[in-house]
Amino acid sequence: MTPKAVLDYLASHEERFIEELFAYTRIPSISAQSDHAGDMQRCAEWLVDRCVKAGLKADIRKTSGYPVVIAKSPKPDPKKPTFLVYGHYDVQPPDPLELWTSPPFEPRRVGRNVYARGISDNKGQHLAHINSVEAWLKTGNELPCNVNFLIEGEEEVGSKSLYDFLPKNAKELACKALVVSDTEIPSMKHPALCYSLRGMAPIEIRLDGPDRDLHSGLFGGAVDNPAIVLCQMLGSLRNKKGRFTIPGFYDDVIKLSAYERKQMAKVPFNETKFRKSVGVGALFGEAGYTPNEQRAARPTFELNGLTSGYQGEGGKTIIPSWASAKITMRLVPDQNPKKVITLVKKHLKAICPPTVKLTVTEGQGGGPYMVDPTGPLAQACMRAAKAGFGHECVLARGGGSIPIIAAFKQHLKADSLMLGLALPDDNAHSPDEKFSLDAYMAGMKMAAHLWPELASVP
Amino acid sequence: MTPKAVLDYLASHEERFIEELFAYTRIPSISAQSDHAGDMQRCAEWLVDRCVKAGLKADIRKTSGYPVVIAKSPKPDPKKPTFLVYGHYDVQPPDPLELWTSPPFEPRRVGRNVYARGISDNKGQHLAHINSVEAWLKTGNELPCNVNFLIEGEEEVGSKSLYDFLPKNAKELACKALVVSDTEIPSMKHPALCYSLRGMAPIEIRLDGPDRDLHSGLFGGAVDNPAIVLCQMLGSLRNKKGRFTIPGFYDDVIKLSAYERKQMAKVPFNETKFRKSVGVGALFGEAGYTPNEQRAARPTFELNGLTSGYQGEGGKTIIPSWASAKITMRLVPDQNPKKVITLVKKHLKAICPPTVKLTVTEGQGGGPYMVDPTGPLAQACMRAAKAGFGHECVLARGGGSIPIIAAFKQHLKADSLMLGLALPDDNAHSPDEKFSLDAYMAGMKMAAHLWPELASVP
Repeated sequence: MTPKAVLDYLASHEERFIEELFAYTRIPSISAQSDHAGDMQRCAEWLVDRCVKAGLKADIRKTSGYPVVIAKSPKPDPKKPTFLVYGHYDVQPPDPLELWTSPPFEPRRVGRNVYARGISDNKGQHLAHINSVEAWLKTGNELPCNVNFLIEGEEEVGSKSLYDFLPKNAKELACKALVVSDTEIPSMKHPALCYSLRGMAPIEIRLDGPDRDLHSGLFGGAVDNPAIVLCQMLGSLRNKKGRFTIPGFYDDVIKLSAYERKQMAKVPFNETKFRKSVGVGALFGEAGYTPNEQRAARPTFELNGLTSGYQGEGGKTIIPSWASAKITMRLVPDQNPKKVITLVKKHLKAICPPTVKLTVTEGQGGGPYMVDPTGPLAQACMRAAKAGFGHECVLARGGGSIPIIAAFKQHLKADSLMLGLALPDDNAHSPDEKFSLDAYMAGMKMAAHLWPELASVP
Repeated sequence: MTPKAVLDYLASHEERFIEELFAYTRIPSISAQSDHAGDMQRCAEWLVDRCVKAGLKADIRKTSGYPVVIAKSPKPDPKKPTFLVYGHYDVQPPDPLELWTSPPFEPRRVGRNVYARGISDNKGQHLAHINSVEAWLKTGNELPCNVNFLIEGEEEVGSKSLYDFLPKNAKELACKALVVSDTEIPSMKHPALCYSLRGMAPIEIRLDGPDRDLHSGLFGGAVDNPAIVLCQMLGSLRNKKGRFTIPGFYDDVIKLSAYERKQMAKVPFNETKFRKSVGVGALFGEAGYTPNEQRAARPTFELNGLTSGYQGEGGKTIIPSWASAKITMRLVPDQNPKKVITLVKKHLKAICPPTVKLTVTEGQGGGPYMVDPTGPLAQACMRAAKAGFGHECVLARGGGSIPIIAAFKQHLKADSLMLGLALPDDNAHSPDEKFSLDAYMAGMKMAAHLWPELASVP
């Protein structure tokens, strides 16, 4: 159980926590831009100082890229379970700057919102965890488990150094589970445990027809048009019910259980509002599933780009020499990217006519992820979230992908418990990124409750 | 009947005619490039001089753009029919220069071929007519009909000035028919009367989905992908037999007569050679028609370009906001571009789902063209071609379009008889354009025989 003193500490230090959030987000730790290398180092150092101030033992670990910050419980008890909080101190580039209402690295408070680059993704989210651990440590309370932190600086650029760092430091990072606050909650009234993420399988297909663009008058009719063939092939991959026609595509998809569907239905969804928020006249999706199920619990086959022939002003009367499509599939548990890509390649080959030459290029994919939402750790998370937010915690599936989580599972043999604090309108990666101070404070409370809850799981 | 002296004159002046062809093609009369305006004027003047030297009355006519050269029989006889030879003295830009074996405006003779920009398209072709009229006039023979010339300088850039010039000068240009040497012959053993050209109907379609590119993880599954919808819509427009599924699309197509198909079958066609020349593994086309029929006598619906989403290196995990396609249809007699575009728009609208917004933009089209190949003027042309080339003349349909021919029909109420001299490997519009001196000489003989043959038609 969380001592009252811990919660009182959080409440009474709110203004200081907000000031620290401002200080943290003032550092333009943009990992994608090498001229911010100094800011990256400064940001990691600020984080170490902050962790030490919270009562943790913290230091910077060098990697081949930007450093990783490791912070640990000051007096680890080998008899207690250890949990690892993951976060990232790097941020997306703020461009386009002209679309920001105020400078992205000068946090601006408007009521209970603060606008700044990286404040929601991910500085505010892991800072809430550091603050809550401070409350445990500074009130003389013993944490019911060992809590360590792993905060990297390359999440926005692919986590390359962390992929190297993990296996080399697996022993030190050993934990019963990871806690990751980097996902969304539907609203302040709906704290959410994200128990599944989709994986990704990218491919690019190219059809080569004639060896050069041909005059459509002199050749059109007898020489096939690779752009039409591309449309026919890709168009045939989806039926009118929104299902993909690639044989075997759904074979390994774990069916949504009645429990999951019931839980997912608790997440509020206003179709009209959603439709207007993306500016479409009607939604589309696989028959038999709700929009929230469609965009998180069902696989997709998405065209990300189409290219063929002349694309400039006016026209050009040609049969284009080639046509290509960039494709990413989002996969759900237990689909395997390699297996799915093999099925897709086989099917494309089968439906490709002899008039064109098909080439399929595979990109780097990542598997889907799922934690049993009925498991004891998941249920413990949900109790902590309810206690922190004052509302029942819902179960959510994330439609996106956090590839490093599969690496945690592989190298640390530990699941990731995803308890995000971002609201749907936080504009992560977009201009005017914001973070709710209510979510920040509720997140701290949730985090404070989390350790006794997780420690209580046998 | 053509006097022997006329034919002897042509044979004995061959070297001079070749020298003149060299002189004419040395002038870089590139209408598309304004820094060649001086060359354009010089070229028109050279042409007037050449016509005067041939015994014609010739002068330059100003237009809003580049001048038109008009040349006329020196002693027009109002009792005789008048024919008008059309040609163009402007040429395509020679770029890319690095792909030329020798400089494009320094004619290079290799055996019986001469390489130079514009030599086949179209300088050599109308110069053959001027030479043959000279032979009639300089041997003291009276032309059996009045022969006038209309040679413009903007064919390669859309003939804008000629469209203005025609109606204003229709009376002076009045003729029984036009003779146009600007089409192909299958080989030196197959002179050809091109009795039909395809028309063209361009449209561009755009599908708008979400109002911005969306994260494919967060939205994919519930928000439709305009690139997939584009593929589905366009892919559905062609069936497995290569026929277009747009209702009414074939309604006005004049069926190929048994006579036409028999005549077209005389044109040699080697499928393997043709296939290899364009670098495809297999041909494609509407079932029930030969490749030559498919690419000249049947309509097409050709995608000239496809554009959607991310097209750069690597990938981008988005649902693209929009997708578009550039389309040109080639139409055959008696299809009407406006009518066909209306049918296509109606059909696209009918098959467009509510998840995207469809916009269709119409371009400037042109109607197809046909002269009755069994008519007396056509038959006269075929006799002249046989006499000139020493081989039976075949009937051909052209798959491309010469839009000005519809304007001749409209303003001069006269048909165009298309007796081309270009060979399939002449590389018009491409590097290393060439012209065959055998075609040049045979073309002069054909032209010499043409006037008595045409004049004999009542």
